[in-house]
Amino acid sequence: MIADPSPDLLARAAQVRRRAMFLGQLGDGQRRQAVRAMAAGLEQNRAAILAANQADLEAAAAEGLAPALVARLKLDGAKLDGAIAGVRQVAELADPLGRRQLHTELDQGLVLERVTVPLGVLGVIFEARPDAVMQIASLAIRSGNGALLKGGREARGSCAAILTALRQGLAASEVAPEALELLTSREESLGLLKLDGLVDLIIPRGSNELVRFIQDHTRIPVLGHADGICHLFVDRAADLQQALRLALDSKTQYPAACNAIETLLVDGAIAPAFLPLAIDAFAEAGVELRGDAASQTLGVGQGASEADWSTEYSDLILSVKVVADLEAALEHIARYGSRHTDAICTTDVAAADRFLAAVNSAGVYLNCSTRFADGYRYGFGAEVGISTQTLPPRGPVGLEGLVTYRYRLRGEGHIAADYVSGVRQFSHRSLPL
Amino acid sequence: MIADPSPDLLARAAQVRRRAMFLGQLGDGQRRQAVRAMAAGLEQNRAAILAANQADLEAAAAEGLAPALVARLKLDGAKLDGAIAGVRQVAELADPLGRRQLHTELDQGLVLERVTVPLGVLGVIFEARPDAVMQIASLAIRSGNGALLKGGREARGSCAAILTALRQGLAASEVAPEALELLTSREESLGLLKLDGLVDLIIPRGSNELVRFIQDHTRIPVLGHADGICHLFVDRAADLQQALRLALDSKTQYPAACNAIETLLVDGAIAPAFLPLAIDAFAEAGVELRGDAASQTLGVGQGASEADWSTEYSDLILSVKVVADLEAALEHIARYGSRHTDAICTTDVAAADRFLAAVNSAGVYLNCSTRFADGYRYGFGAEVGISTQTLPPRGPVGLEGLVTYRYRLRGEGHIAADYVSGVRQFSHRSLPL
Repeated sequence: MIADPSPDLLARAAQVRRRAMFLGQLGDGQRRQAVRAMAAGLEQNRAAILAANQADLEAAAAEGLAPALVARLKLDGAKLDGAIAGVRQVAELADPLGRRQLHTELDQGLVLERVTVPLGVLGVIFEARPDAVMQIASLAIRSGNGALLKGGREARGSCAAILTALRQGLAASEVAPEALELLTSREESLGLLKLDGLVDLIIPRGSNELVRFIQDHTRIPVLGHADGICHLFVDRAADLQQALRLALDSKTQYPAACNAIETLLVDGAIAPAFLPLAIDAFAEAGVELRGDAASQTLGVGQGASEADWSTEYSDLILSVKVVADLEAALEHIARYGSRHTDAICTTDVAAADRFLAAVNSAGVYLNCSTRFADGYRYGFGAEVGISTQTLPPRGPVGLEGLVTYRYRLRGEGHIAADYVSGVRQFSHRSLPL
Repeated sequence: MIADPSPDLLARAAQVRRRAMFLGQLGDGQRRQAVRAMAAGLEQNRAAILAANQADLEAAAAEGLAPALVARLKLDGAKLDGAIAGVRQVAELADPLGRRQLHTELDQGLVLERVTVPLGVLGVIFEARPDAVMQIASLAIRSGNGALLKGGREARGSCAAILTALRQGLAASEVAPEALELLTSREESLGLLKLDGLVDLIIPRGSNELVRFIQDHTRIPVLGHADGICHLFVDRAADLQQALRLALDSKTQYPAACNAIETLLVDGAIAPAFLPLAIDAFAEAGVELRGDAASQTLGVGQGASEADWSTEYSDLILSVKVVADLEAALEHIARYGSRHTDAICTTDVAAADRFLAAVNSAGVYLNCSTRFADGYRYGFGAEVGISTQTLPPRGPVGLEGLVTYRYRLRGEGHIAADYVSGVRQFSHRSLPL
C-alpha cells in the first residue's frame, strides 16, 4: 500500500497545476522564448551544475555504484553542452499546440472544432540521468505543460542544481518558475503516483522494473515501455550479406538500447547457409549466442532455455531460433515479442507484405535495422520516450505525445431539443482545417 | 483481490485474439460485408431475441428490478429494428483502418509510414442494455477488432440470443464467429480485468460506480467516464432569453445523460435579472433548484451543500451558484468540474475567448446546449462512448477510438551505425500522405 501524498506535496502539485494552466494559454512565441531562457539559465549555472555532479559522482564512488550507473550519472562539460544544445533545439521545434484536427459545421451557426491543447502536468521519474531532466523539462514547457520531476537518489545534487538553473531561466520569461517542481524523497516519488487529478501523465525513464512498479501503483496514465524484446527474422529469400549487416547492427550498435534485438529468427531453408556466417560474425563482435536445438546443430555453441525467448538481455547476448517458415516466425513474435519493433529481411515481396501486415508491434520493419526506432531518427526532433502500449501515443513519442485535444463548439443559442423534435437537422458539413 | 482468470476464459480469450488478428488484416469491403451479415443475422433471429428479452423482463419483474433498469433492459420490436438499422449504419461508416498519418523519407531508400491499425481485442462490460451489445459489436468488427462482451445479469438471456444471432451472421462472412465471445458470469467479468496482453481496451457502459471499479482493478486501458459534472455559466453579457433556453435544454432535455448540466453558474451582475426568470422556468419544468446563499436571496428556495457542487444528479435537480465574475466561474469549474463539457452563454467576445481557452474540459461550448456532446451529433456516425480522461481519445469517441497506429519502415539494408559514424545523413523529407 502506498501512503497518501503529504499536504506539502499536494500544495506544491496544486501550485504547479495553476502555473501550468496559465502556461498552457501562452502563445507559441512565449513558450519558445521560455525554453530559450531555460537554456540560458543552464549556461549561466554551468559551473554550479558541474560541481554538483562532481559531488554526486564522489558520493556514488564512495557507495560503490555500478559502473553503468556511474556513466549515466556523469555530466561532464561536453555532455552538459550537448544537453543545453538539445534544449535550444526543443525551442525551435514546431508548436504542437493549437492545431485544428477537425472542423465541422453541425448546422448553420453551430461550428465544431477539435484543437490540440496541453495535457496539463507531467510527472517524470528518472533514474540517475541528469541530462534527461533538461530534455524532458524543455519538452514539457515547449508543449505548455507543467512538470513534477523526480531524479534518482544518486543524482540528487545534480538535479537540484539543474532545476535551480532552469527556474532561474524561466524567471526571465512569461512562464512562472513554479511550473517546474523538483521532488526529492522516495516518499514524494510514491506520493506522485497518487496525484490523480493534479498530474495527467507519468513518464518513467529508467529500468523495466521501475516502469512496471509505476504501472502497477497508479491510476494516472503511464507513458513507457516495460520491455523491448525485438526480433529480426531472416526469411528464406533474404540477401545473406544484407541479413548479416542488419543482424549485427540490430544487436551490437548499442546493445543496451530497448530497440536492439534479443532474438534472431532464421528460416530453416536458409539457416544452413546463413548461420555459419552469422556465428563467425557474432563471435568476432563478442556476442554470445544461445540457440535452440536446430541452430545448435548448425554450430551455435550454447543452448537457449525457454526463458531466453522472453529475456531482454540489454547486453551482447542473442538468442537464435531456426523456424520452419514465415508463419512460424510470426507465431514466435506474437507469443514472445513485446510489440516494440520487429524486422524481416527478405527479397520476397509477398513475404514482406505478410510480415508488415501481421506483426502487431509499434514498429514493423523491412530490410533495415531495428535500431531506427527512435524519435530523432524518425524526424521528430526530440523524444519523450518510446511507448509499447497499444493505444496512441505508441512507439517513439515526440512533442505530440505531450498534447491532447479539446472540442470547441460555438453556437447561436442552439439547443438539442430542436434536433430531437426534428425542427432542425444536422448538416455535418466538413469545413477547411 | 481479484482471482486470476480461469483456464477456460484464458483459452477463449486467446481464441478471440487469434481470430481478431486475422480479422484485422481483412480489407474494408470484407469487414463492411461482415457487419451487414451481422445485421442480417439479427433480422433472422428477431423472434428469438424478442422472446429471450421477454423472459429476461419477466424475471426482472419477479425480482422487483427498478423501473429505470427495466426500461433499459426492454427490447421491443421497434427498439430492435432501430438497433438493427444502427448496425447497418455502422457498416456504411468510412473505414478507420489503413489511414496514412505520416509519410517521411528518412534517407534515400528508407521510408517511414504511420498507418492506422486495429487495437486488437476489446473487453466490453455493459449493464442491462441489450441494444448496446449490438452497437458495440458492430463497431468492433467494422474497426477490425475482436470483442469479449459481458452483459448485465438481468440481460443474460437477451445477450445470449443477440450473440447467437451476430455469430450466425458472421458465419456468412469472412470474419470468424469466434471473434465475438460472450462472457456470462461475474467471475468471467472479473477475470476479463486481468487479461492483460489478450485484451487491449476495456469499454465499460454503465454507472459511474461500475466505471470506477473497473479503473481501479485493471492495468488494461479503460475508455470511459466516471463522472459528468457539466456547467453552464451565464455571463453578465448573456442574452437573457438565450441563456434561459440553453439552461433548460442542458438540464431537462434528457436529465439522465452525462452531458446534462448539474450546476448553473450565474454572474452576479446579471443574477438579479436572470435568476427570477430561471426560477419560474425551472419550476414549470419540474426541476428542483438548490442554491448558494446569494441565489437563495434572489429566490432559489432550497440551499445547496458543499457536496452538491460535486454531485451528478442525473435527475431533474440543478445546483445554482452566483459567482462574482467570469474568473470565479472558471475557478469553480476547475475545482468541481469533471472535464466533460462546460458552456458559457455570452455576447462578449473577450469573455467567450477567455472561457474557451481556459476551461480544461473535453468539450468547451459557447452559446449552445451541453447536450450536443455526443458522437452522432458531432457527425461521427456512431459512438463508442464518451471519455473524460485527459489523453486521447477524449470526449465523444467514434470508430477512430478503436484504432491505433503502427510505424512501418522499409529500407534497403540500412543500418544505424552509418548514421552514428556520419557516413550517411538523415534527410527527413516529408512525402505526400
